[in-house]
Order: sequence, then structure tokens, then C-alpha cells
Amino acid sequence: MGGDHGPSVVIPAIARALTELPETVRFLLHGDEAVLAPEMARHAGAAGRVTIRHAERVIAMDEKPAQALRRSKGSSMWNAVEAVREGEAACAVSAGNTGALMAISKLILRMSADLDRPALVASIPTPKGVTTFLDVGANVDCDAERLVEFAIMGEAYHRAAHGKAQPAIGILNVGAEEMKGHSEVREANRVLREGGFEMDYRGFVEGDDITKGAVDVVVTDGFTGNVTLKAMEGALRFITGELRAALTSDVTTKLGALVARRGLMRFRDRMSAPLGAPLLGLNGLVLKVHGSASERDFAQALKVAADLSQSDFAAEIERNMRRLPAALAEASPAPADGAV
Amino acid sequence: MGGDHGPSVVIPAIARALTELPETVRFLLHGDEAVLAPEMARHAGAAGRVTIRHAERVIAMDEKPAQALRRSKGSSMWNAVEAVREGEAACAVSAGNTGALMAISKLILRMSADLDRPALVASIPTPKGVTTFLDVGANVDCDAERLVEFAIMGEAYHRAAHGKAQPAIGILNVGAEEMKGHSEVREANRVLREGGFEMDYRGFVEGDDITKGAVDVVVTDGFTGNVTLKAMEGALRFITGELRAALTSDVTTKLGALVARRGLMRFRDRMSAPLGAPLLGLNGLVLKVHGSASERDFAQALKVAADLSQSDFAAEIERNMRRLPAALAEASPAPADGAV
Repeated sequence: MGGDHGPSVVIPAIARALTELPETVRFLLHGDEAVLAPEMARHAGAAGRVTIRHAERVIAMDEKPAQALRRSKGSSMWNAVEAVREGEAACAVSAGNTGALMAISKLILRMSADLDRPALVASIPTPKGVTTFLDVGANVDCDAERLVEFAIMGEAYHRAAHGKAQPAIGILNVGAEEMKGHSEVREANRVLREGGFEMDYRGFVEGDDITKGAVDVVVTDGFTGNVTLKAMEGALRFITGELRAALTSDVTTKLGALVARRGLMRFRDRMSAPLGAPLLGLNGLVLKVHGSASERDFAQALKVAADLSQSDFAAEIERNMRRLPAALAEASPAPADGAV
Repeated sequence: MGGDHGPSVVIPAIARALTELPETVRFLLHGDEAVLAPEMARHAGAAGRVTIRHAERVIAMDEKPAQALRRSKGSSMWNAVEAVREGEAACAVSAGNTGALMAISKLILRMSADLDRPALVASIPTPKGVTTFLDVGANVDCDAERLVEFAIMGEAYHRAAHGKAQPAIGILNVGAEEMKGHSEVREANRVLREGGFEMDYRGFVEGDDITKGAVDVVVTDGFTGNVTLKAMEGALRFITGELRAALTSDVTTKLGALVARRGLMRFRDRMSAPLGAPLLGLNGLVLKVHGSASERDFAQALKVAADLSQSDFAAEIERNMRRLPAALAEASPAPADGAV
């Protein structure tokens, strides 16, 4: 029921995804049956693989998480996450209110990692593919242990979502040298280097490495991740705005822009295709889809959800998480030098 | 002598700037006279207002700051900064090694603010003009006091460089609400709100506000600032790369791109015009120009240097800095809630 477009995007996206997903994949559709049933009726081919579960209530996109949480029981979002806990569903997918989804997921599924709340992943396009970037907004204060947890979870997610056997991991910092940055990143760097994790850890990366694809997974605290992601989104909006103005500022370039239209569309598509963003650190899979996701975006997120559900995601995270206490204990204390 | 192009850009830039600057503005040109004199001879009009000061040594672009510092005395960079301390020059301008310039400036001029090293400013284009963004790389660990110092210095710099009487100031955070973010930003927010500074302080801003121009000056710690700036630069490079590929991928769009060329050039110009970046918190003016700056960019930076030199910049900073101890003492302690 969530997102900017609700069932008018979600249901066609399910129909589209089903044509490409294995026969065994099925969907539970939570929400107002009076709205969902007529829309579903327009996609006869999907009918046998989609079950509508009526919910009395829907959480609004603009409700505050705390307020939403109080009145959330029995809502479509609540029921979707509860189905994961009950083992009825392998993964919950929502384009609804992010804060409410995080709060409800934490309450129903509980945290497996030692985090304040689930870590949120962004998928950033690069010339080589996609950078998995986390945490982008959930956990503002992160010590070295939390950064290492992000690395473990991000690594397993990237493998499951993108099929790369051994993703390369980096920690975001102000320089590549080991002595750079604050004590949390230097300590996390040491733990990941020396902790014996099953992971291709590459050390520190810088801000421009996110879109370069220097590594597959870029790890940072939720403060830096949130600000950086929004700054990149803002830069993209500014640039496309400037470009539009530049290309329509006189008749000649306007003509050029018309002819170049197809190329520009391809460019915009590539920049704006959001994969689902998993909520990591929960005892169960929850995928957040951008509220403005198109039918095609949402269908792609559903395929990621299916890939995650069929992967060894949770077991792989668990295996590296078991190394964590020993790795933290082994790591020598950080030197005091915080030099840039 | 510094930058990617050395005197072949710096000297024509001086000649260009002099045509637009008041008659009273003059330049001391530090470096190898054997290189500088022939280049200067090609700009007869500038000769009377430029004095060459021979220096035996030049600091290389790739020297480590610590190494450069040891051998820096008598270098062109050293002499330029020393001229500021000696009152011979109002502002030192360099396109050379940033780390060396910061170290030399700190050693010769000493810090006026309570910072590890000078704060570095980036000027980000927006639809409305320019956002002054600091600190972008110098001070990794920043408490509330340092953030307030950045606000005071950034405010005075923006007024001097852009002629806006009352620049609006914001602190970068993960949301606009007062209870968001970590304790340092919440404490700085309270000090700026309640401290009685002569400043148009607007509260928290988010990452995408940097390119929106929501405020004139965006304040953050050197870690977040460095990472965010590089991430935005990386996003720009990625987007222009994708755009180029999209626009040249077939004959039709290639034709369109040719016609749209003029518009694209304007767009790129606007994105890549770096103003000089001041090193803030020193007892004296030092302006860093990007190593790859064009003649036009460098000339623009020289005009900023002249504007700064003729402004009440230092006195305005001093006035607000005097409020700081009382403002810090008055501010009530931060609440423990770190909720996003």
C-alpha cells in the first residue's frame, strides 16, 4: 500500500517480476483488499502466485515513526513483517514510510547485531556496476565494532544481491593511509585486517571511490553515510537541473537536446534505478524500496528480494559475526595519532 | 611556481586579474626568477604592478607535508606566507601542495582559533550562487566549539568573498529537527542559537542542501566535509562520464551532442570553476587555488584574494570569537538522546 504510487505500481511490478522469477516464488500481498483485488484482477497471469492478505490499516508516508509504531499493529506493514517472523514469508518488501518500517521491523524481528537500529544500505551506480554503501542513516554514533558489523553484513548482502563470489570491502576515510582518520575507523581497519574474517578487505577508501567502484562495499557510520548519500543525490539534482537549463537556453542547443534525448534518457535511467535497500542486522529479511520507485524499479527490487531469500545470506553473516568478539579482543589498541 | 601548470597559468592569470582590479592592488611573485622573468616579459601591461622575488627552492606537488616542511625555508611557498607575516603582503595565494601550504602557514602565521590546523573551505555551486562549505579536510575530530568556530569564520569569509551582508549559516546533520544527530552537532546548534552571535544562524541542514543553496554557509567536521566533498566530486565525474557515453553511443545522439556542445560547455564551466579556498583560523590570509586551475579560475581566485584583503574579515571573526567562551559556558548540557 506504501510509496508514492501504492498498488498501481506495486501490483504491475509483481506481475512483471513473476515473468522472470522461478515458478516457486510466490507473493503475499498485504493491504486493503477493496483496493488490491480490482488491481490484481487486471493481471490474470499473476493470480495463482499472489495471495491477498487484507489489512484494516495503512501507515501513512508522513507519520512519525514513534506515532506510527503505536498504531501499527494490524497495518499492512506490520502484517508483512510479521509474516517473516512467522516463517510465512522469506522477505518483507515495502515502499512505505522508512522510519516506521525500521521501527516495526526492529520490534517484530529484533536485532541480531549490536546496533541501535537496522543499518540501511544504498546502492550507488558506478562504471563497473554497483557500490553497496552502508550505513546511510540509521546509526549516528558508530564505534569500531559497529563498523566491522556493517562490513560483515554489507559483504554478504552484496554477494547475495549481485552474485559476486568475493566482494571487495573498504572503509570510508579522508585518505588511504593507515594513520589517517579518527580512532573508530583506524580501529575498525585493524580489526578487519587482523581478525581472520572470510572477506576481501582492502583498507580505506575515499569519498570519490563510492562512484568509482574502487571496492564493492563501502562502510561508514550512519551520520557520514546519510550526509554523503544526500549530498550525492543533491549534486545529481543540481547537475541535471543545470544541464537542462544549459541544453534549452537557446534554439540551437534546444535542437541538440531534442536529438540527444534518447541518450539523456538512458543516462537518467541508470542514475535513478534504485535497487531495494535491505534493513540489515535484523533476524529476518526486510527490503525497503524507494517511495518514488517506478514499476520497473519495484520489479527489480522484488528480484533482489528473491535472490536474498534463496541465498545463504544469514548463514554467511553469522559465520563472520562469530569471529567478531575474538577479533576485537586480539586487536592492539589504536595509536593516539589522529593526523590527516 | 605551484599547481599543475605553474607560471604558464599563474602569470597570465595575474595579467588578466590586474585589468579588473583597482590600481592599488599589486603582486609579489615568489619563485625561480629565471623562469618567471621571461614569462612576465610577455605581459608588459602588468610589469609595473608585479615584483618578482627570487626563491632558491620550490616545494614539489607530491612531497609529503612533513618532509616538505623540513626543507621549506626559503622556498617560494615559504616566502609567500612569510611576506604575509611581515606585513609585505595582505594575502598569500598558492596553487601548490595543499598539505605543505597548510603546514607552512600554521608554522609561520600560527593559529588564531583553537584548531589542530587551518580549516579548508570549498565553494559549491548552487542554482542561487555558491555555498561556502567547511571544514573539508583539515580537522578530523571536531567538538562543538570547533564547529562554532567554523561557523564564525565561514560567515565572515562568505561575506567578504561574495559581498552578501548577512550570510545564512547551517550545520550539516542527518535531519532538520533539533534532537537529531550526535552530541557535537546538537551542542553546536544550541551554542549558535543561544550565544548572541552576530549571525543569521538557521539551524540544521541536510546533505542535499549543500547544492540547493538552502543556506550560504554549511558547517561540518573535517571528516564529514572531506568525504562529502569528494563524494560529490566523484558523483560529478561519474555523471559526466555516463553522459558522454550516452551522448556518443549512436549516430543520432552523437549528432545531438555536437549541436548541444555549447550548452554542455557552459554546464561544465559552471561546475568546474573553483574559487580560491581560504585556510581559515590563521593569523593572516592564505588562499589555496586548485592545482588544475585554469588561467580564468586563477584570475578569479586573485580577485577573491583582493576582496578578502580589503574587507573587515579578520575583525568580524574576532568580534564573534570574543562571544565564544561566554556562549559555551551559558549553553545548557546536551540531552542524552541521540535519536535519528
